Amino acid sequence: MSVPLKGTCVIGQSGGPTSVINASAYGVIRTALDNEHITEVYGAAHGIKGVLEDRLYDMGQEDAEELHLLLNTPSSELGSCRYKIADPDVDDTDYKRIVEVFEKRNVRYFFYNGGNDSMDTCNKISRYFAKVGYECRVMGVPKTIDNDLFGTDHCPGFASAARYVATSLMEVYKDARVYDTGQITIVEVMGRHAGWLTAAAALASYEGCGPDFIYVPEVAFDIDQFITDVSACYEKNGNALVAVSEGIHDKDGKLIAEYSGEVGTRDSFGHAQLGGLAATLAGMVKAKTGAKVRAIELSLLQRSAAHLASQTDIDEAFLAGKVAVESAVAGETGKMVAFERDMSSGSYVCKTVLLPLEKVANFEKKLPLEWITPEGNNITKEFIDYALPLIQGEPQRKQQDSLPRFAKLKKVLVK
Amino acid sequence: MSVPLKGTCVIGQSGGPTSVINASAYGVIRTALDNEHITEVYGAAHGIKGVLEDRLYDMGQEDAEELHLLLNTPSSELGSCRYKIADPDVDDTDYKRIVEVFEKRNVRYFFYNGGNDSMDTCNKISRYFAKVGYECRVMGVPKTIDNDLFGTDHCPGFASAARYVATSLMEVYKDARVYDTGQITIVEVMGRHAGWLTAAAALASYEGCGPDFIYVPEVAFDIDQFITDVSACYEKNGNALVAVSEGIHDKDGKLIAEYSGEVGTRDSFGHAQLGGLAATLAGMVKAKTGAKVRAIELSLLQRSAAHLASQTDIDEAFLAGKVAVESAVAGETGKMVAFERDMSSGSYVCKTVLLPLEKVANFEKKLPLEWITPEGNNITKEFIDYALPLIQGEPQRKQQDSLPRFAKLKKVLVK
Repeated sequence: MSVPLKGTCVIGQSGGPTSVINASAYGVIRTALDNEHITEVYGAAHGIKGVLEDRLYDMGQEDAEELHLLLNTPSSELGSCRYKIADPDVDDTDYKRIVEVFEKRNVRYFFYNGGNDSMDTCNKISRYFAKVGYECRVMGVPKTIDNDLFGTDHCPGFASAARYVATSLMEVYKDARVYDTGQITIVEVMGRHAGWLTAAAALASYEGCGPDFIYVPEVAFDIDQFITDVSACYEKNGNALVAVSEGIHDKDGKLIAEYSGEVGTRDSFGHAQLGGLAATLAGMVKAKTGAKVRAIELSLLQRSAAHLASQTDIDEAFLAGKVAVESAVAGETGKMVAFERDMSSGSYVCKTVLLPLEKVANFEKKLPLEWITPEGNNITKEFIDYALPLIQGEPQRKQQDSLPRFAKLKKVLVK
Repeated sequence: MSVPLKGTCVIGQSGGPTSVINASAYGVIRTALDNEHITEVYGAAHGIKGVLEDRLYDMGQEDAEELHLLLNTPSSELGSCRYKIADPDVDDTDYKRIVEVFEKRNVRYFFYNGGNDSMDTCNKISRYFAKVGYECRVMGVPKTIDNDLFGTDHCPGFASAARYVATSLMEVYKDARVYDTGQITIVEVMGRHAGWLTAAAALASYEGCGPDFIYVPEVAFDIDQFITDVSACYEKNGNALVAVSEGIHDKDGKLIAEYSGEVGTRDSFGHAQLGGLAATLAGMVKAKTGAKVRAIELSLLQRSAAHLASQTDIDEAFLAGKVAVESAVAGETGKMVAFERDMSSGSYVCKTVLLPLEKVANFEKKLPLEWITPEGNNITKEFIDYALPLIQGEPQRKQQDSLPRFAKLKKVLVK
């Protein structure tokens, strides 16, 4: 291992927030503040954009107790961005600027807390630093409710969103069958390309109060088959409950969400802003069956419901941040903290490993096809075995007036 | 007081469910099972329709522990209905049938657990029994997330939904301002004619993470003013968060939800199935500002989120059922259990009183106009003082695999 570098640490958050991304940030911040080799701990405002603009918050000036509340504060407290950094071989303007800011602040540790795109950013910065010989250790700290990061058993953020999806589906199940007049209910869950989070609806079925059908983007969606499935269930049982990924598409790859003609805007990574799919499907099913149909979109609720986070997820999110700092101080760079599942004791144990960023960046881990039923409309028991240990534990969160008491940071800008 | 009647008790649930309507049912069932004068305790399947069809579940055959879990099981476990009973002076068919079934089962106590329409049903049945001399005591047990029942300080079900709305708004607030690129977020809350539940969004603002604007149906909604409000806020702060009742209407009384041209079906009471309002408003605001706009509809989630119920609400819901049985046994009939707020001790105490059903039925209690700001786009501190005591207490709910463990009733039909 190398000698620890003496210098400042910067943490940035990027991409769509989760219920526990701040637990990872806290893992980085707390560990860095307590480390003798790290002189200052700065939070970048809105991820890499905060670095480029030299907008850095001094975490050393925050109250320890407020920082601790980050464990139960949803969303990215430092602010996020969806800024696509150029390929350094094509345009190195941003990279030069990062080195300039980092040199001025003597930044020797950089932690980037995000998903696929953020790991790509992190990887590019790491490679650039190596190329120009700027001595700064760069580590990725994973997060994503989508659970689609390559090389890790699971991602911080997924389990809490999964617990929310499963709990909400169970509650909606109870509500949606209360009348004797019947109802078809379609619940839309986030997930553009990977169906992990929508599959979490199967946890509700495992507990006896879940959807009749689950559709994920890993298999092509056939509208006629969907209507046949749902109509038959409704005819038989007087009701039907469906969970569907926002990113389902037909066999030609066209998003079903785009069938309604109302396509959202696209962000700088080219991702469409989806939503409205459940309403589109509800319209189709209503036209066919004449049933009362409800469309429910879990929207931002599913990724910000810190009150229903999994304590396991919170603990692991913190651990990822902590291990990132400890590993960087010990000499690691260009890596992402990943999780390995150890079942050798007979019960679930989560271990951390370090993966080279280039192995992670820009790959997507899909739901295994064998965890989807042959009909393509449900999820198998293998997923339950995989997901159940991850969602365990009720968070012991601070409340005020029986409402959440989130962290209140001072966010003092470094002069 | 009269002599207690010896006989069977029937409990029915009606109207839209809540997170705690089963706590009231449990209050009735547990108290009735433990009462020496009540011989059998039956639950009507799907409210009054279960009585008409003689579909009654024998509650005496249920496990005590499963019945206890009703305290934390959302929706109406006995099943609900939206059946409009005729005026007995016009058509007494249903009433004759009720007497027939009740005589056969020796039913001497009838408890009906619901909102405005249910209290109307309850009142008609009570008056009919008196008219024809059928000896059966009839009591209304209130519920509604809308909080619009006349004569009671508040309604069981409201506080839990309010706690859900406030918590969710706080979480969405955090998520919706994470990017530096700005966002306008419009959250649609249930409430056709009364804005109580939407006003609960003000509790989030009270905690520092709430909406910039709140629109309720008590005042006419002006679309131009709305767009001006939201645009100005967005221009100034880079984001705007709005809570809006599904039932807002223009000065001519036309529902804004109907502006989109997609009107839902109407139920047998003539109520429109609303929804889609947030998306309609989002479209208008997007066209005007060009901002990224998100529409979120809390839909069924807000009335079934038992995991976020208020323990105060659960306790009071149970109390309402318990007092209904005790009062009926003591000789009362034709009454609804209502709540009075006693602040004489300096802190909130909830007392029960009995109100004649005819005083309650078919009146709606609106949000006081003086609790709405003069601009008609926000809620005053008076509402906070009113609502805050009601939402207190985290429910101690049973879980299994860190997911809800709802009551599992056998529902044995009475032969």
